[in-house]
Amino acid sequence: MRNIKMIIQYDGTRYNGWQKQNQKDSTAKTIQGKIENVLNKMTGEEINVIGCGRTDSGVHAENYIANFFTDCTLTTDEIEKYLEEYLPKDIVIKELRFAKDRFHARYNVKAKTYVYRIDNNKYNNVFTRDFTNHIPVELNIEQMKKAAEYLIGTHDFKSFTSLKAKNNKSTVRTINYINIIKNDGLIEMEVNGNSFLLNMVRIIAGTLIEVGEGKLMAESVETILMEKDREKAGNKAPAKGLTLKEIQY
Amino acid sequence: MRNIKMIIQYDGTRYNGWQKQNQKDSTAKTIQGKIENVLNKMTGEEINVIGCGRTDSGVHAENYIANFFTDCTLTTDEIEKYLEEYLPKDIVIKELRFAKDRFHARYNVKAKTYVYRIDNNKYNNVFTRDFTNHIPVELNIEQMKKAAEYLIGTHDFKSFTSLKAKNNKSTVRTINYINIIKNDGLIEMEVNGNSFLLNMVRIIAGTLIEVGEGKLMAESVETILMEKDREKAGNKAPAKGLTLKEIQY
Repeated sequence: MRNIKMIIQYDGTRYNGWQKQNQKDSTAKTIQGKIENVLNKMTGEEINVIGCGRTDSGVHAENYIANFFTDCTLTTDEIEKYLEEYLPKDIVIKELRFAKDRFHARYNVKAKTYVYRIDNNKYNNVFTRDFTNHIPVELNIEQMKKAAEYLIGTHDFKSFTSLKAKNNKSTVRTINYINIIKNDGLIEMEVNGNSFLLNMVRIIAGTLIEVGEGKLMAESVETILMEKDREKAGNKAPAKGLTLKEIQY
Repeated sequence: MRNIKMIIQYDGTRYNGWQKQNQKDSTAKTIQGKIENVLNKMTGEEINVIGCGRTDSGVHAENYIANFFTDCTLTTDEIEKYLEEYLPKDIVIKELRFAKDRFHARYNVKAKTYVYRIDNNKYNNVFTRDFTNHIPVELNIEQMKKAAEYLIGTHDFKSFTSLKAKNNKSTVRTINYINIIKNDGLIEMEVNGNSFLLNMVRIIAGTLIEVGEGKLMAESVETILMEKDREKAGNKAPAKGLTLKEIQY
């Protein structure tokens, strides 16, 4: 068996996220499903593509990492060409190569970087509209940066997840940094952390947006964290603004 | 009569260029047609939108300038809101304001800047694929810059136009500069000139691409100019890579 590692880029607009909804889903509306269908056809095997994590419906990825095991003896170039030919144009393989047997795209993740993009022009830029959340009212970046500071470090992020913790699973996570920059009307919020709870980045983005709009005080983010109550944080920001940027192993 | 000036941004993918094909074209597949239809509905007049120039089918614009005269008494804010509501998402009005009576979007043009974008990654970037020409083979930027030098200044660009000069119209034009930069796999060729012949930027781009691929010597561009023969220059590069960037008045 060979272990093959891929770097995948996708425009998530048309898909129900990365993860396959059920094992027998042949009408794949997921990135995983699309790729497995092509690999199954190519190898004649039942390939299980291991992804670095789930992404929500409509979320994009610049450098998604996945791996799969196969007995197929094609060269990496041949596999890449096959995928290029049969995958839709909104899913591309940036790189494909052999990995060590022990490499596992999900278990080995050390940290992830997401970027949330806001088109903060009055008009909705036609060139980036599929990959940004359009907010025509000018956001106060300085207040957003101030609010973000409270989230850095290890905290219980229970207020920042849609997950209903049934089984006392920990909602403690570590955020290493949040960078917020604005360039020519485009705001990019880069969030790096060891692992993330369900919808965590989108709820952080939604909360920081409310701070930027002046609806929430920057300081209130500290209180929201302490209250451990999803109702206190801001709305979940739209999926189309979110892109998985990088994975560290 | 009030003279209103607009800065327009459009994703040209779905359109047959800026210019309306005929006066009675109500099933507008052109940017001009789409905007006139909305303005006609709003004003009850027959509005003639004057554009800064034609753009080919499939070509985009970041800052297209147009103006129109109207008796309508709405405020500029109200007109902008109306256009925002009724125009499709791939055409947006970035700015709209009153201009002096003598302002004419086409006659007053001093210079235009186009940018031709090439995705020079092996894979076709999913986020820019609608606005770039994908060339997976690495182009030699230094040779392209060298070739571009021959085009700067005032020359007869007969080799670089699809126009069949029937009536001895001059094909002499002036190019002020061509900047070529590469950033993260994206090549941008910025071409600034006083006015351009039919398909001139796309044929320049196509010729420089052939130089970058090593199919043409940089020096041969000088000969191509002198020969005044369309057959000698490179192919017309695909429309989707071309964007009208800026107009100087």
